[in-house]
Amino acid sequence: MNTPEPKLLIELPMAMRWRDLDAFNHANNSTFLTYIEEARLHWFKKFDGAWLTETLAPVVAAIQVNYRRQLAWPANIIVGLHCERLGNTSVTIAHRIIDGSDRSTVYSDGHTVLVWIDTASGKPVALPEAVRRACQ
Amino acid sequence: MNTPEPKLLIELPMAMRWRDLDAFNHANNSTFLTYIEEARLHWFKKFDGAWLTETLAPVVAAIQVNYRRQLAWPANIIVGLHCERLGNTSVTIAHRIIDGSDRSTVYSDGHTVLVWIDTASGKPVALPEAVRRACQ
Amino acid sequence: MNTPEPKLLIELPMAMRWRDLDAFNHANNSTFLTYIEEARLHWFKKFDGAWLTETLAPVVAAIQVNYRRQLAWPANIIVGLHCERLGNTSVTIAHRIIDGSDRSTVYSDGHTVLVWIDTASGKPVALPEAVRRACQ
Amino acid sequence: MNTPEPKLLIELPMAMRWRDLDAFNHANNSTFLTYIEEARLHWFKKFDGAWLTETLAPVVAAIQVNYRRQLAWPANIIVGLHCERLGNTSVTIAHRIIDGSDRSTVYSDGHTVLVWIDTASGKPVALPEAVRRACQ
Repeated sequence: MNTPEPKLLIELPMAMRWRDLDAFNHANNSTFLTYIEEARLHWFKKFDGAWLTETLAPVVAAIQVNYRRQLAWPANIIVGLHCERLGNTSVTIAHRIIDGSDRSTVYSDGHTVLVWIDTASGKPVALPEAVRRACQ
Repeated sequence: MNTPEPKLLIELPMAMRWRDLDAFNHANNSTFLTYIEEARLHWFKKFDGAWLTETLAPVVAAIQVNYRRQLAWPANIIVGLHCERLGNTSVTIAHRIIDGSDRSTVYSDGHTVLVWIDTASGKPVALPEAVRRACQ
Repeated sequence: MNTPEPKLLIELPMAMRWRDLDAFNHANNSTFLTYIEEARLHWFKKFDGAWLTETLAPVVAAIQVNYRRQLAWPANIIVGLHCERLGNTSVTIAHRIIDGSDRSTVYSDGHTVLVWIDTASGKPVALPEAVRRACQ
Repeated sequence: MNTPEPKLLIELPMAMRWRDLDAFNHANNSTFLTYIEEARLHWFKKFDGAWLTETLAPVVAAIQVNYRRQLAWPANIIVGLHCERLGNTSVTIAHRIIDGSDRSTVYSDGHTVLVWIDTASGKPVALPEAVRRACQ
């Protein structure tokens, strides 16, 4: 196990959608997880190896999100992911959602713990090498 | 500030929807926040006083969610909320999602920090008395 | 091809969710399709044969929805599906969303055209016998 | 009442999201309404007059959608809206969703009937002049 300097994994610009708003007229709290997920999946696609096979799949084990500022429509945002901690069977990824036209405006931050599971047993396995390489 | 014994605030039975599934054929991680929100809003409606006014509104300040077990469709779940900590300007609510027909099956737990804001300034205010009463 | 008397396929009671609301504080137009889909999938599960195989899957070919009345939270609704027309490769299903405590209150009606496709080619195939039986 | 030549109202490029997929691994049928809505709202924002006031709000009266081709993630799409029919109290808007990098690939088409309602009575009113101007 080691704790690397946080490494930037991806920065994904995204457009908010009007449907992301809830009845309080701001982006719903659950939508932030969809933004973070979108960046995560785009990061997976950049791996130099498989992130999803017949027998292996990534799952979110835990997530922590701070809501720093309300987000109104329309808005362009940037979702940034950093590798925070690389373990044997899990990787912790810091997320940060900032404004697309003013990077000093932070809407949200926090971190996600990902594991890869054996799809038959549902149990976590050692992190695939492609994941380890993508974090280092 | 005090730290009461965790008090059960509400238990809400809910039916999962097929659309809650994502391409991995399990309930998407963001959907759990929608389940928790649904229980929270039903709890708000039970208050013996206003939880939403022209000038006051609740917002999620932070959320932490552990995903303990994958959730497949169809399923009936129960979302339980407990008061974990009652502060001056925030309340921390523990959430727990269990199976509707087997309460020992835990899909998720964690906690949410709620604040009430002045809708004009966006700043947190002292917790409304109705919230304090609902937690004690 | 024949045109049977409309046959009731299923009536599914559902609870609306707060997240179904949009910034206009009523159930979003897209959400009605999720309600209709939920009833449709529960209907599929009642078939006395396969509705989904390695090579066959149902897809929505077209949908038409009339929004008769705004739907506010909280609400219990009932989604009813009827077989409207049974063709060689498609089935047209009428949908109707009514109030759970007042069946004369109609929120929406319309119809959906379903086809079953060969998952390899993406082309419609003759309707599976289990579908035909479920409609007659 | 008149029936103008279809007038292009807006073309909005959008990025699909992974969460738009359902368990069949293609964009869910309800999501197409969210794409169409996003273009519609961006069109509203271009009006040279109010589209939403204390007393007036647009609502979808009916929608018809043809699903021409399955949509997989990731994808960039373009949502185009045309004015199809301008009535006294309703406007019919044709929608068309095409591929962002190949305009000849059509994922969906159909049309939406919009009305503006008096928010107190819920009844349709004469179309606001800003809407009429935006369609002509």
